[in-house]
Amino acid sequence: MKSRHISLTKHFTGPVKPEYFQTGEADLPAPKDGEIQVRNEWLSVDPYMRGRMTGITTYIGPFEIGAPMEGGAVGRVVKSSAEGFSEGDWVMSMNGWREGWTGPAKAAQKIDADLLPPQAYLGIAGLTGLTAYVGLKRIIDLKEGETLWMSAGAGAVGSAGIQFAKAMGAKVVASAGGQDKCDFCEEIGADAAVDYKAVPDLKKAVKEAAGGGVEAYFENVGGDHLEAALDVLKPFGRIAACGMIARYNDEAPAPGPRNIIQVVGKSLKIEGYIVSNHFDMQRDFIRDLSAWMGAGKVKSRETVHEGIENAPKAFMGLFSGQNTGKMVVKL
Amino acid sequence: MKSRHISLTKHFTGPVKPEYFQTGEADLPAPKDGEIQVRNEWLSVDPYMRGRMTGITTYIGPFEIGAPMEGGAVGRVVKSSAEGFSEGDWVMSMNGWREGWTGPAKAAQKIDADLLPPQAYLGIAGLTGLTAYVGLKRIIDLKEGETLWMSAGAGAVGSAGIQFAKAMGAKVVASAGGQDKCDFCEEIGADAAVDYKAVPDLKKAVKEAAGGGVEAYFENVGGDHLEAALDVLKPFGRIAACGMIARYNDEAPAPGPRNIIQVVGKSLKIEGYIVSNHFDMQRDFIRDLSAWMGAGKVKSRETVHEGIENAPKAFMGLFSGQNTGKMVVKL
Repeated sequence: MKSRHISLTKHFTGPVKPEYFQTGEADLPAPKDGEIQVRNEWLSVDPYMRGRMTGITTYIGPFEIGAPMEGGAVGRVVKSSAEGFSEGDWVMSMNGWREGWTGPAKAAQKIDADLLPPQAYLGIAGLTGLTAYVGLKRIIDLKEGETLWMSAGAGAVGSAGIQFAKAMGAKVVASAGGQDKCDFCEEIGADAAVDYKAVPDLKKAVKEAAGGGVEAYFENVGGDHLEAALDVLKPFGRIAACGMIARYNDEAPAPGPRNIIQVVGKSLKIEGYIVSNHFDMQRDFIRDLSAWMGAGKVKSRETVHEGIENAPKAFMGLFSGQNTGKMVVKL
Repeated sequence: MKSRHISLTKHFTGPVKPEYFQTGEADLPAPKDGEIQVRNEWLSVDPYMRGRMTGITTYIGPFEIGAPMEGGAVGRVVKSSAEGFSEGDWVMSMNGWREGWTGPAKAAQKIDADLLPPQAYLGIAGLTGLTAYVGLKRIIDLKEGETLWMSAGAGAVGSAGIQFAKAMGAKVVASAGGQDKCDFCEEIGADAAVDYKAVPDLKKAVKEAAGGGVEAYFENVGGDHLEAALDVLKPFGRIAACGMIARYNDEAPAPGPRNIIQVVGKSLKIEGYIVSNHFDMQRDFIRDLSAWMGAGKVKSRETVHEGIENAPKAFMGLFSGQNTGKMVVKL
């Protein structure tokens, strides 16, 4: 089986450009003992991958130039030389950005494609959903009746988080760029949505939409959003920070929040986290998610691009806000 | 009894100037039933008071123009019409910035001047010490063997915090402005001290002094210190923020930390607090403090100005770093 894949031509800072990506092709070997061969059906593209393109090691190392990149993928087993895996099984792995792979079966996890559509395991039922869940449950410790400001509400983590927060009994004000996205946020349950591209004063708009202030802020954006949040939060407000997409393409340090001193005056807490340090919540997450989905409170949402050759375009679309819900690539 | 007092001539932003203060005098009435008359012996001046001079209500209201300001004070009862208070008793109150007062006895708290020098109750055994204790014990949750960066290490909270952290078994790197203050930090127990006015790169200097990085940062300063701390902290680092004195005299918003995104990448926690929300720790604090002082691990340190007329000068000195230890006024 032949497999096309995407690799980097160079490490880079600044805006993502098409020429940084190239398509290659490889013949997949037959699986050896303990290995499987998988044809990927869905690929995940995520903002955190931007960090691996800079060549700098943060909490995860950089992508290797010229080698297939890595990322979430779901697909079906084509050939198996591993116990417990049969042809046709649906599996999830980190062997994304490619059409197929041959490798150790232990790098794959079987998923139940009858319970949920397979691509949901890349989104609401996968790391994306778990990221939203950890932020709300553990970092913010969101209480029934509290008001949450969800930034990037139409994004993958944001749209999961809006639905989870509503299911937890909170009031949700979402922010997003454009009327269509705001409509989407309200459609999935947000009590109000603020179009940050249209309002002259983000802080004022969120405060009004929230009816005064908010107890919690879910940080996906950074920059002016964080600065506004420090003003909008009530005393003892909590911020969960799992990403700041507005900052990932910066070539030089950007101004920080000029009102950081609010942290002292209002006894605020800002806490960053990385989902992989919270895998102990996986069991609780799946239990709550199943109940919420069963009750019709939470749905999976995706924006779909088609074909391996369009994976870079899907990835670049994350930074110009072209997705509602999880951005995925259908092969 | 006549009592001189200090009041504000106006509310203001920007640098503190002598002309914003005026001295008045009042005849103190004889105490009515339930009241006492007190001659203050020691006054406290503290950075948080700067906020009350802006005319804006934050977690505490502004000072009233023309009226005696408020602040910590210890003194002795001159006349008593209240049960449980006798002439000569030492008491602590918030009726500072004045030589004496007549008022309800319930506004005063008796202190044991045999156990500790009376002015210590304005510093290491008072709110200053409790502020350091809460930050280390509850906000940072400092563990034995961890390394703490204490900013403004020669200040009131800082010098208490250095001694407490050492007593708790941590390693301490202090920062302060000038060689004398750095010497003071080391004299009271800091393992190393960095003169932020002398080093070309604060981040690099603290990192070297700490032998790599730190687990916790105690924020008293803000500005470039906070920015450096976000870089120096190790993953899962914790910041307790009880003040940012470098920012209190700002007339316009100052640039925030340009590297705030480190909060995400390193799973950092920044938490602001106000000591008055943590009075439930008072009992633990006094228990630990008594043990530490008894073992000679912690000492009270003050910078003293004399006379009510010099209280504004003492206060202004806080912002140009003229104190080592707690700044107090002896009457």
